[in-house]
Amino acid sequence: MEKLVSLCKRRGFIYQSSEIYGGLNGFWDYGPLGAELKRNLRDTWWQAMMRQRDDVVPLDATIIMHPNVWRASGHVDTFSDPMSTCKACKKLVRSDQWWSLMSEAAWVKTVAPLAIPGQPFNTELLFKFARSKGYQQAPNLALVKETEKLLAQLKDANEKGDFATDEQNFYIRIATLDSSATGAVTPCPHCGGELTAPRPFNLMFRTHYGPIESDDNLAYLRPETAQAIFAQFKNVVDSSRVRVPFGIGQIGKAFRNEITPRNYTFRSREFEQMELEFFIRPDEATRLIHGKVAQWSEGADLSEPQPDWGWEMWHRYWVAQRTSYYEGIGLGADVLDYYWQKPEELAHYARATVDILFKFPFGTEELEGIAARGDFDLRQHQMHSGKPLEVFDEELKAACAALTDDQRLAFVDEAFASRKNPDVTREEVEAACANLFKGNYLPHVIEPSAGLDRLALAILSAAYAEETVTDEKGKSETRTVLRFHPRVAPVKCAVFPLLKNRPELVTKAKEIVQSLRSHMHVFYDESGAIGRRYRRQDEAGTPFCVTVDFDTVGENGPANEGTITLRHRDSMKQERIAIADLPARLATALD
Amino acid sequence: MEKLVSLCKRRGFIYQSSEIYGGLNGFWDYGPLGAELKRNLRDTWWQAMMRQRDDVVPLDATIIMHPNVWRASGHVDTFSDPMSTCKACKKLVRSDQWWSLMSEAAWVKTVAPLAIPGQPFNTELLFKFARSKGYQQAPNLALVKETEKLLAQLKDANEKGDFATDEQNFYIRIATLDSSATGAVTPCPHCGGELTAPRPFNLMFRTHYGPIESDDNLAYLRPETAQAIFAQFKNVVDSSRVRVPFGIGQIGKAFRNEITPRNYTFRSREFEQMELEFFIRPDEATRLIHGKVAQWSEGADLSEPQPDWGWEMWHRYWVAQRTSYYEGIGLGADVLDYYWQKPEELAHYARATVDILFKFPFGTEELEGIAARGDFDLRQHQMHSGKPLEVFDEELKAACAALTDDQRLAFVDEAFASRKNPDVTREEVEAACANLFKGNYLPHVIEPSAGLDRLALAILSAAYAEETVTDEKGKSETRTVLRFHPRVAPVKCAVFPLLKNRPELVTKAKEIVQSLRSHMHVFYDESGAIGRRYRRQDEAGTPFCVTVDFDTVGENGPANEGTITLRHRDSMKQERIAIADLPARLATALD
Repeated sequence: MEKLVSLCKRRGFIYQSSEIYGGLNGFWDYGPLGAELKRNLRDTWWQAMMRQRDDVVPLDATIIMHPNVWRASGHVDTFSDPMSTCKACKKLVRSDQWWSLMSEAAWVKTVAPLAIPGQPFNTELLFKFARSKGYQQAPNLALVKETEKLLAQLKDANEKGDFATDEQNFYIRIATLDSSATGAVTPCPHCGGELTAPRPFNLMFRTHYGPIESDDNLAYLRPETAQAIFAQFKNVVDSSRVRVPFGIGQIGKAFRNEITPRNYTFRSREFEQMELEFFIRPDEATRLIHGKVAQWSEGADLSEPQPDWGWEMWHRYWVAQRTSYYEGIGLGADVLDYYWQKPEELAHYARATVDILFKFPFGTEELEGIAARGDFDLRQHQMHSGKPLEVFDEELKAACAALTDDQRLAFVDEAFASRKNPDVTREEVEAACANLFKGNYLPHVIEPSAGLDRLALAILSAAYAEETVTDEKGKSETRTVLRFHPRVAPVKCAVFPLLKNRPELVTKAKEIVQSLRSHMHVFYDESGAIGRRYRRQDEAGTPFCVTVDFDTVGENGPANEGTITLRHRDSMKQERIAIADLPARLATALD
Repeated sequence: MEKLVSLCKRRGFIYQSSEIYGGLNGFWDYGPLGAELKRNLRDTWWQAMMRQRDDVVPLDATIIMHPNVWRASGHVDTFSDPMSTCKACKKLVRSDQWWSLMSEAAWVKTVAPLAIPGQPFNTELLFKFARSKGYQQAPNLALVKETEKLLAQLKDANEKGDFATDEQNFYIRIATLDSSATGAVTPCPHCGGELTAPRPFNLMFRTHYGPIESDDNLAYLRPETAQAIFAQFKNVVDSSRVRVPFGIGQIGKAFRNEITPRNYTFRSREFEQMELEFFIRPDEATRLIHGKVAQWSEGADLSEPQPDWGWEMWHRYWVAQRTSYYEGIGLGADVLDYYWQKPEELAHYARATVDILFKFPFGTEELEGIAARGDFDLRQHQMHSGKPLEVFDEELKAACAALTDDQRLAFVDEAFASRKNPDVTREEVEAACANLFKGNYLPHVIEPSAGLDRLALAILSAAYAEETVTDEKGKSETRTVLRFHPRVAPVKCAVFPLLKNRPELVTKAKEIVQSLRSHMHVFYDESGAIGRRYRRQDEAGTPFCVTVDFDTVGENGPANEGTITLRHRDSMKQERIAIADLPARLATALD
């Protein structure tokens, strides 16, 4: 990791923001190569999610939105992390990071009094717990609830006797360490002082618009790009020729005021997201139209969306689509992993969530989350704005018009019998069904939400390689190379004249640059030995280098005139090809 | 303008941000077509400023930077507008907009007491002044100073007797209307109440990073993208193979807390900039190397940069480059204008500034500013950060090494004699020259700074047209069409099957969509009469429509099999061409 960070700074991928002023924790800038890399990643996402499809349209919304957007989404109330302050050293400690901040010595000191009398002290158990998902991954939304849920589970397991005695007791004691119930004092991981009880700290950056700072014009920097899509859903439906199923995608900056930003650019305070909200029919509507709902089962064909798909098929479809996207930019099964959230881990409105994980040098962490969110978001915005956000589905209306009264009644009966909330009355179910029969509903949504900075870091991590190479003179040296997929490589092709003081070589090399430049990012370099120039491009991750030499310009006879040396980054192989063949060769590799 | 705003909403170019919550003044979202348009504009800028050149590299920096960046740049102290509050109705009034907010009736009432006794009241003079640049264009930076400067000029003119008596007196009285010196009360343009004296209101959005809101972690949302380029200048120089002259470009969001956002998206609180900082040698260095500095004169050849160019040539070069960029996306001399700031209007550090203006429906306003800023910005950041930001110029060192002692002395003599600040000592000049002789200097900068949202609005304004067309049946109707240049058009080509219920037509149309989609944004539409589909694409500004009919699929014999109708948006002409020729035809038009 250290080597990667150093390379990123040295070669102009990533700098600390405002570095000359001492930097700003959690903010990172992208230098020339990093900016190109990010731009290429945005382009591949845009290509895959918009251009290559008929059913997704883009949106480009503001970072500062009406604060009610964040009331409706729940961010104002629940987008917080629990935080404690040390009464002695005044440092701030994010409660869920307390575990990882504690040194081993502090652990032993703290936990020793909790050891079960007569049992050996089991540090393995301790670290197993500290590494557990709830405490390590810090799912920002409603983390406090996560912690409470975990506690409840542990207590439940205790009552049922599911754990071996020592393990069970140990977990309970650890898990309740910072709760007042045990009376135990949680020590500051920095100084050992007493920490205050955790309090929720909202992660949204606050600002004020207009000239007076008051509660009336408080605004937030968006903590995600997704909500703008829900807020503008109706406008998009009314102004574009979209019909469910369809998606709205957005790429843009988002901000989270992390208490402790960490892992380089992975968890930063300002970052960029690439989010898609894909709107589908509720399963009830699909059943009314098609008489059935296609359910997912292992091995189901996900290649082409079908009209009778239910939400689970759509969810699986998007997991497959996103997996193939990652494969297409060089992140294959060897570096990716999947975490399917367990039913008890899901947010209350979510039907399924899978995290696509990448094996970062600092651990396996989330690259993208793909959630089936039902109609939660649109329903919230409909309620808070008072504006109807339902769509009208001609096909549904036609299908329902053909139903007999008995069929309708049976549908209502089933809907009432299968209602999730027992407080819902028969009348309410009837009204909802009547609306549905008219062709109206709130679409459900599948949300593939990717982090651009995380993706850039994953691409850099996966690409980084060091290898020992032996030159012609038998001398060994270490070659550092970024094995980017050509599609995302910042520079696609570097062009060198063999010698910079030979105008015929320089002119020819510049001609080649000129001929390629409309199609790809090319880089011209004339200084230093050819071997050094190759190495520099290896570090920049440039997949192809072209060298113009005396053969090219015909000085060694007509046999090789008009040919250049094409050097491949990964194999370091060189081949002689005609200049005329170069554009097609490169285009094939980049496609 | 109203028609354009309505079209933009109806067709999904631009929506009010958070519209379902009543909107947010000064914030605008871009819908599907608007997002594509902005993306195309970004791409054309990137192509022209980076890809097609060897000497410009990109940067992608954070919106929140260290607050010292804004101390160094002067924004903390001077980036403000003067603002008054009405003591009666409590409304806020931006002092420089007071003129335009006043109704004619209010004017007469207010100004009547100021009329020169015995002279007829001259409203022409009044409006001439209200339309003058200082008050109308509101140059955000140090506006208060602008106002003071204008006052001083008027007073000066008064003393010299340069004005005719009534005009002169009138100006003085108007200009000092809101100053306490006259004792006159400035009336509120809304209710006629008394306004407070104007106070500076800083236009930067404020926020806090980290968990505690205090002055220690106050931060600003960047009011421009340019400063990040200066702050990261050294990192870029150290990590890229750039050498003066070279540029760093950046596209990104910026924020200004305008007191009264207005003119649709023209002056909004959140906007996107496309800025280039192009670093050049100081003229002294050029003279030391080349013995002379090429100065600009009317008709000078600006096509290709030359090593001996001075700052003025570079400045003119960039004006020419940017003009040709605008031409390339359809904004020609008929819609652009230029305003060269007069010497007395320039910021103290600026050597020259030209505004490229566009003739908007609401007036001719700035699209881009191109400033020659000397080394002001790098010098400020060097001073505030304490980090040396000078570059080393091998060529300059070599040239100076070849100078005789007499030549050096003569250079120092001249530098001392021509120093601008008389307080600078001979010793200080000597030290600066000695540093220069070693090859070190702070580069000077030319800054072409364009607003993406303004550009999008200009493109929309220029493209909007209504015309009366007569259909085959002799019926007249109004055709609304957006005549975008094909390069920036959101949709490049729409493809229609003549009838949606004929699978052979639908299949062929979708095949064509598929074949084009990797190269451009295509749109498939099968619903409605062909004529209506054409009109819809006219409103979206799609330059080409392709219709697949029975000829295409060979139902009318082999003569036209494999051909389609290509319909041109502007001429509405249709031609029959082979499907095989389509990609090349479109590629030529889009290039």
